[in-house]
Amino acid sequence: MKTDRDYMQLALDLAASALGKTNPNPVVGAVLVKDGVIVGSGLHRKAGEPHAEVHAFNMAGDHAEGATLYVTLEPCSHFGKTPPCANLVVKSKVSRVVVATRDPNPEVAGRGIRLIEDAGIKVDVGVLEDEAIKLNERFIHNMLTSRPFVISKFAMTLDGKIATSNGHSKWITGEDARNHVHEIRNNVDAILVGIGTVLADNPQLTTRLKTGNVKNPIRVILDSQLRMPMEAKVLDTSEAKTIIVTSTSNIDTAKVATLEDKGITIVFVKKNNNGLDLEEMLDQLYKLGITDVLVEGGGEVNASFLRAGLINKYLVYIAPKVLGGKNSKSPFLGEDLQTMDDAIELEFESYQQFGQDLLVTAYPKKR
Amino acid sequence: MKTDRDYMQLALDLAASALGKTNPNPVVGAVLVKDGVIVGSGLHRKAGEPHAEVHAFNMAGDHAEGATLYVTLEPCSHFGKTPPCANLVVKSKVSRVVVATRDPNPEVAGRGIRLIEDAGIKVDVGVLEDEAIKLNERFIHNMLTSRPFVISKFAMTLDGKIATSNGHSKWITGEDARNHVHEIRNNVDAILVGIGTVLADNPQLTTRLKTGNVKNPIRVILDSQLRMPMEAKVLDTSEAKTIIVTSTSNIDTAKVATLEDKGITIVFVKKNNNGLDLEEMLDQLYKLGITDVLVEGGGEVNASFLRAGLINKYLVYIAPKVLGGKNSKSPFLGEDLQTMDDAIELEFESYQQFGQDLLVTAYPKKR
Repeated sequence: MKTDRDYMQLALDLAASALGKTNPNPVVGAVLVKDGVIVGSGLHRKAGEPHAEVHAFNMAGDHAEGATLYVTLEPCSHFGKTPPCANLVVKSKVSRVVVATRDPNPEVAGRGIRLIEDAGIKVDVGVLEDEAIKLNERFIHNMLTSRPFVISKFAMTLDGKIATSNGHSKWITGEDARNHVHEIRNNVDAILVGIGTVLADNPQLTTRLKTGNVKNPIRVILDSQLRMPMEAKVLDTSEAKTIIVTSTSNIDTAKVATLEDKGITIVFVKKNNNGLDLEEMLDQLYKLGITDVLVEGGGEVNASFLRAGLINKYLVYIAPKVLGGKNSKSPFLGEDLQTMDDAIELEFESYQQFGQDLLVTAYPKKR
Repeated sequence: MKTDRDYMQLALDLAASALGKTNPNPVVGAVLVKDGVIVGSGLHRKAGEPHAEVHAFNMAGDHAEGATLYVTLEPCSHFGKTPPCANLVVKSKVSRVVVATRDPNPEVAGRGIRLIEDAGIKVDVGVLEDEAIKLNERFIHNMLTSRPFVISKFAMTLDGKIATSNGHSKWITGEDARNHVHEIRNNVDAILVGIGTVLADNPQLTTRLKTGNVKNPIRVILDSQLRMPMEAKVLDTSEAKTIIVTSTSNIDTAKVATLEDKGITIVFVKKNNNGLDLEEMLDQLYKLGITDVLVEGGGEVNASFLRAGLINKYLVYIAPKVLGGKNSKSPFLGEDLQTMDDAIELEFESYQQFGQDLLVTAYPKKR
């Protein structure tokens, strides 16, 4: 005998398969069950395509009547690119709806559920809610803050080093871990580095995956003094777009024009004591449609996000190596703190092995 | 139906319970099985006490005849503090002996087995051999090198920092991890730090355990210029012994005499390009009866062991924290390396959670 949790898990699994493909929308899965038979199932595959419930109801046809709908996110109550799913649920005459979690947007949360309940359909909320919230952590953060979800990613040796004193870092981790990074890049809207990384390594910052659809994230370069060399690989926009973030006090209008002619977007933000105002930058990037950013910066860029309290998730690959060296590079630089108590507290989420390397996933500690 | 592996696992579990208590001897477990009944079992509890086989045969009495003996290490063939176990095995008239692994000492390996086989008793070697070798990694290293087994232990934040720029480090990890460190200290013969740590923190370096027998390891302080302050807590030898390692070129004979009067052992070693000759030091420590050393040094001490290729095992506690700071302290300092390829390669052995913290156990990569 299957339980509500079993069916909701199935709906979550369906949703998870589209992670990174639905931006700016959430991932959503739906399962319709009648007399123990799954009469409909679906997921939201891509922004602009039908919502999960629509696919499930299309599959179920008349079988939806009297069925139970399991859906990972509260059905929408507003007209967007598609009509409100809550209306569809009511029309379908299902006998019960099980929702994993409410719409995170506080202004609309509960409306879809109320609409369904007002039609006399029983609604249960909260089955596998933690899992559902985790699955849509990016979307929920977007809804609550109107900013992209920021992921700090770096690879280090077991003694916490990301490069030798002269910047050599190829490679810290093995092939499996590096392939995993490319999968992550393929699932984010943007990848961010500092101009220092561009000047030192001249990276391409594109996704290299052997299989599957490659979606190259937008490359965002922090470059307060517009030091970008015109021959940098990131200025080749044939594979991926590029945004350069510079200071509003920048006056090199000729260089700005040349870059814009090459198809580069220039974002101007004011400076604060710590350099470019990253909060203002995130506001602007979100308006440009960027819902998540993978920060792969050097120590100074990483530290500026850290000190501004803007990192939402950490992906740390740890290689089975010890480098040592008094001038070897650390993942976070920036200002020194006085005591260990001042450190930013995290929560470890998981440990995964990729080849010989360990991936530690962590989040800022909830207060 | 139990297999050879099942009984050997039991013998290994018996042996493991005495880890850290048998130095300089190995841990050994033995099980005697007859017609599916365990007629005898035993382990070596402490140097000077009977070997595992003796306990097992004492328990079995006449039931040993025709039984199978499972023993985690080749029975000894030499007269030490006790008569050779191989003779006892022959006298007992067991019908078969299963040995996990041979005596690691190449000069005696196989002798015990041959003695038993010559008496017409069947011997099988190699059941759970990897586990048996791991269990006696310290003893095997001692036998092969005549040096203590060196464990590098440190606690760091997720960004690889062991202290703030001004040396503050209390605490990086939580209580569970710190308790685990005290359990480890309780199982080693010596704990080693540099004089820098003594000058900065004036630590006691004793074992603080709420329960169980506390065996305080000998404190070994690297102090090439004999800067040890006379009021340092490590000079209080009421709870634990202290060894100061200094340079043969040290001429402060008055201070040496004063320290020796306080019961401190002074070990003199020559200096090489990298400071005190650590290989010579390990040779001397082994002669003083020290079979394993927990290195809890700062970055320079850790690096000197690393660069000399003397670390046999790594215990790295990683706390869910990010510190940052361009002058925060790293676990290994020392000379800079040119490329990431020059890093010392390790193998991750295990990941364990202690409270909120992660313990990564690693070994130098086998060639």
